[in-house]
Amino acid sequence: MIAPESLAIRWRNDHLELLDQRVLPHREEWLSCRSAEDAADAIRHMVVRGAPAIGITAAYGLALAARAADDAADPETLAPALSVLAASRPTAVNLFWALDRMKRLIERDSGAPLAECLLAEAHAIHEEDLRLNRTLARHGAALLPEPARVYTHCNTGSLATGGHGTALGVLRTAFEDGALERVYAGETRPWLQGSRLTTWELMREGIPVTLVTDSCAAELMRRGQVNAVVVGADRVTANGDLANKIGTYSLAVLARHHQLPFIVAAPCSTLDLSLPDGSHIEIEEREATEIRDFRGTPLAPAGCEVFNPAFDVTPAELVTALVTEKGVVHHPDRDAIAQHMEQTHG
Amino acid sequence: MIAPESLAIRWRNDHLELLDQRVLPHREEWLSCRSAEDAADAIRHMVVRGAPAIGITAAYGLALAARAADDAADPETLAPALSVLAASRPTAVNLFWALDRMKRLIERDSGAPLAECLLAEAHAIHEEDLRLNRTLARHGAALLPEPARVYTHCNTGSLATGGHGTALGVLRTAFEDGALERVYAGETRPWLQGSRLTTWELMREGIPVTLVTDSCAAELMRRGQVNAVVVGADRVTANGDLANKIGTYSLAVLARHHQLPFIVAAPCSTLDLSLPDGSHIEIEEREATEIRDFRGTPLAPAGCEVFNPAFDVTPAELVTALVTEKGVVHHPDRDAIAQHMEQTHG
Repeated sequence: MIAPESLAIRWRNDHLELLDQRVLPHREEWLSCRSAEDAADAIRHMVVRGAPAIGITAAYGLALAARAADDAADPETLAPALSVLAASRPTAVNLFWALDRMKRLIERDSGAPLAECLLAEAHAIHEEDLRLNRTLARHGAALLPEPARVYTHCNTGSLATGGHGTALGVLRTAFEDGALERVYAGETRPWLQGSRLTTWELMREGIPVTLVTDSCAAELMRRGQVNAVVVGADRVTANGDLANKIGTYSLAVLARHHQLPFIVAAPCSTLDLSLPDGSHIEIEEREATEIRDFRGTPLAPAGCEVFNPAFDVTPAELVTALVTEKGVVHHPDRDAIAQHMEQTHG
Repeated sequence: MIAPESLAIRWRNDHLELLDQRVLPHREEWLSCRSAEDAADAIRHMVVRGAPAIGITAAYGLALAARAADDAADPETLAPALSVLAASRPTAVNLFWALDRMKRLIERDSGAPLAECLLAEAHAIHEEDLRLNRTLARHGAALLPEPARVYTHCNTGSLATGGHGTALGVLRTAFEDGALERVYAGETRPWLQGSRLTTWELMREGIPVTLVTDSCAAELMRRGQVNAVVVGADRVTANGDLANKIGTYSLAVLARHHQLPFIVAAPCSTLDLSLPDGSHIEIEEREATEIRDFRGTPLAPAGCEVFNPAFDVTPAELVTALVTEKGVVHHPDRDAIAQHMEQTHG
């Protein structure tokens, strides 16, 4: 298998390279990972971010551990690498999904050299994600009003996935179809994924994008400047509740108030049927400095108390449609999601 | 009359001094204004901000022009100063209210030296604002759930007024009464009035405050961590619609969804009965660089399109109560506001 190459993740001979998303859009620097620890650090420190991209990176991280091991076929050998990768970020389920898939391969023991098998599996996870996103995007684009003026949050594009993107993939496909008028990108405090990453991705492709503060979304809706909201997800539970970047729940409430479609685009690997509802999702709280400082410059008084959840939970009843590579779940609930997951590819 | 002195505005012998709010909380620097142009520049560049504080500064600006004039009693002499001050920022009505009050004094011509009269009137506007805010705060504090955990936006405190504050004045009074548990301050992008100013004001007085990103408000409501929203206003129209810092409308919609009281605290000088509703309010759009850069460091790609309205419009039907120095207007509408304004002091 030829190693797939995406905007943010690429395999080079014997190591993984990640585009450092902390310094975009001003510098395009690639960071090398040569061990599972390197990959886990890159996830923890947000060199790479976005639920699908985190999953792909973790898979490559385990492949790196297998290459370094004397006897990768001994299940104990890779246990520490699995642990360190699983502990890197708690909320996105794709991380655990990718590691589980790699673990199943280890347990299967086909007789072929495990390090090679694991690398091939990481490539497959990467390549499949790109392919699935194109299918997902096609389903999602069909749901948009035409011409679409879409508000989106955080970054869910090529940088956040194996390529094309989830929510941003939907918008890319709509643009290719001539059906997208403009994207409004919320800056997405505190990490500014919208300002730094989404605008950069869209401007490279000539897709019209306007950057706004997160608190401007409601006013855009009131004025009729947007006619849909499309976001990604880090984890969708069995009843359709979802965790996504802080601010997503706010957009869902605002979309409902303005009677606009609120569309969630996420591959099936984001669905976690083991959790009955959103109250069971572990929400990562990140450091106060992300809000209190800007690149070392204090924004707030020293010692100021901060609450910095990285994600929020949106209840299913606010979701107009959940889009996966299998198709569309309108008004998702427990039954509709169970039925959707049992389907073969749509 | 002794010159009143507030946290941000003070008169010194022959000139006005303003605490430079652009460099708070890290530096406490006072900037001197010796002409109406200086005062207008300070308003335009947000050395001073907050609707009541802008009005007070404009009044002092006109007093400075009168001092400098050869013949201040000639109405033509002060016309350029009135123009430059009126053109400094369009949305807050207190600016125009204060200038109208000064103009009436000029037209009245009591025979006393006009420069002295105008300075005394500026002092009076300043001192009255402080006094009114204390009365307003008392009315507002009585509306809060107890113990109150209040979300607030932007800065509406001593820095934004003649002293004590409007929305923040309500919270100060509730704290003095032992009825306030905690304030949640939204950072208020792009200018970070919440991070830089509100936290600073509250921490100086030992009032518990937690800083969050603006997009976190909805999640705090969903979790029950806040039980009321209190904000200020830059202009309230005859039917109760209001312009306030971008993000206010979003909070009003979110408060309604979570069935929380949404309280607007503003002195009567903020009410503009000449405008029938919010659609007539001129909304200032500020420079793209406020969102695209941070103190000269680019956050987004060069040339990225930005939409940066400084204010948004909240319809009256989302307002639980409008609080002024005269008392409380529950569920404000045209009749209730007209009746309220006809009242003598409550």
